[in-house]
Amino acid sequence: MLPGDIEAFMRELCDAAARETLPRFRMRLAVDNKLESGFDPVTEADRAAEKAIRALIGERYPDHGILGEEEAATNPDAEYCWHIDPVDGTRAFICGLPSWGTLIGLTRNGVPVAGLMHQPYTDELFIADGAGSFHCRRQSRTRLSTSPVAALAQAKLMTTTPALFAGDDLARYRRLEEQVRLARYGFDCYAYAMLAAGHVDLVVECDLKSYDIAPLIPLIEQAGGVVTTWEGACAVDGGRIVAAANGAIHARALEVLA
Amino acid sequence: MLPGDIEAFMRELCDAAARETLPRFRMRLAVDNKLESGFDPVTEADRAAEKAIRALIGERYPDHGILGEEEAATNPDAEYCWHIDPVDGTRAFICGLPSWGTLIGLTRNGVPVAGLMHQPYTDELFIADGAGSFHCRRQSRTRLSTSPVAALAQAKLMTTTPALFAGDDLARYRRLEEQVRLARYGFDCYAYAMLAAGHVDLVVECDLKSYDIAPLIPLIEQAGGVVTTWEGACAVDGGRIVAAANGAIHARALEVLA
Repeated sequence: MLPGDIEAFMRELCDAAARETLPRFRMRLAVDNKLESGFDPVTEADRAAEKAIRALIGERYPDHGILGEEEAATNPDAEYCWHIDPVDGTRAFICGLPSWGTLIGLTRNGVPVAGLMHQPYTDELFIADGAGSFHCRRQSRTRLSTSPVAALAQAKLMTTTPALFAGDDLARYRRLEEQVRLARYGFDCYAYAMLAAGHVDLVVECDLKSYDIAPLIPLIEQAGGVVTTWEGACAVDGGRIVAAANGAIHARALEVLA
Repeated sequence: MLPGDIEAFMRELCDAAARETLPRFRMRLAVDNKLESGFDPVTEADRAAEKAIRALIGERYPDHGILGEEEAATNPDAEYCWHIDPVDGTRAFICGLPSWGTLIGLTRNGVPVAGLMHQPYTDELFIADGAGSFHCRRQSRTRLSTSPVAALAQAKLMTTTPALFAGDDLARYRRLEEQVRLARYGFDCYAYAMLAAGHVDLVVECDLKSYDIAPLIPLIEQAGGVVTTWEGACAVDGGRIVAAANGAIHARALEVLA
């Protein structure tokens, strides 16, 4: 059983984060000034947003655990745990690209049950509340469903950059890339949102942390998709991840990546 | 001398294009239906938007030339010529990614004098009207200026995908990539807009067509940047392009790419 009115509370969390991130996005600083002062907008945004999110969770659900990118874990053995990446895609953020997002996920006994990706510049919220996945923008709230594409030859594949794959992992990734219809780079968490929304069929990455992927698992699963490690194991702890639009394309991607 | 009130007219053009592109963006089709009907939203968007733009130009400036992606050139030897790429970034478009844009540029006697990139989903217009470059969104209109970063070691570099570079070109691009602070992939014309806005310092690509780059040259130049081929020649006909935030970083990039 999820805490009551979880979506409203999660929206409060991402609104609080956006008040810290958005004013710092596309902030122009003189290079010299930045070097001298050590002021770094994305680091400030990351820290301030996590602090704001932690404060609200601590107030509303003091028994819940919190695992974030910026601070030490709080109650990591609690039944309910929040996983926070206040600015996923910091490199996109500093390049002015609106493909970064705030990720907030909730696990119960280690199982992802709700999650969101919020992109405040484009004003898009992708949220899974336990009952389904939804794209919310302005007054609209649209249920998401993943694509039915089952053949690699028809699939659209995304990864942030092939530079992340080392050695044999790169060779495996390339083997997959050669078999798909289209491969696109860039976009960080936004790529997973497009997978949930049915526009992309596969996202393959490596070196993910728990807070990079735990919030996205419910979003993809509750839209009909499948997320595991390259070995087909539970993805909640991060690592090498394959997120797929459906079980059929997931199985084909795993065969190539194995 | 530019035609009077050029910005207002250019805004009319991109609004007309957006009426054709935006409703087709993120349109979900059953795969079978698409295969059977042959209906392809991005191709339809491309064609319909170019038709709408051509109609407005033909009505207002019947003597002007028009060079577009979709139809044969009209009056290509005219003093003023319009260069149109109704949907730059068709692969982003079909992946639901808001990094595609409508590109419209104006040359006088072959020299780019005005241009725009419009991203209707994020509601962003990047426009150069002869007097400067501006970012327009909702009620705001902000003058753009490129970054002062002069050293490769501090530079942020973008390219849509390294897969575009073949043979020796790839080796040269990789040499540049190894020397910069940060390299990011993806984003098509949006990367050039971020260069004009000062968030990115270099964009390097190849195989561009005239209509891919002519509309972006004024946007970058009128914000303080420099755009040439890898040989340092005029970029208006496309080819291998280096767009740089300023003359100093441009010179350093050319040295590495030469």
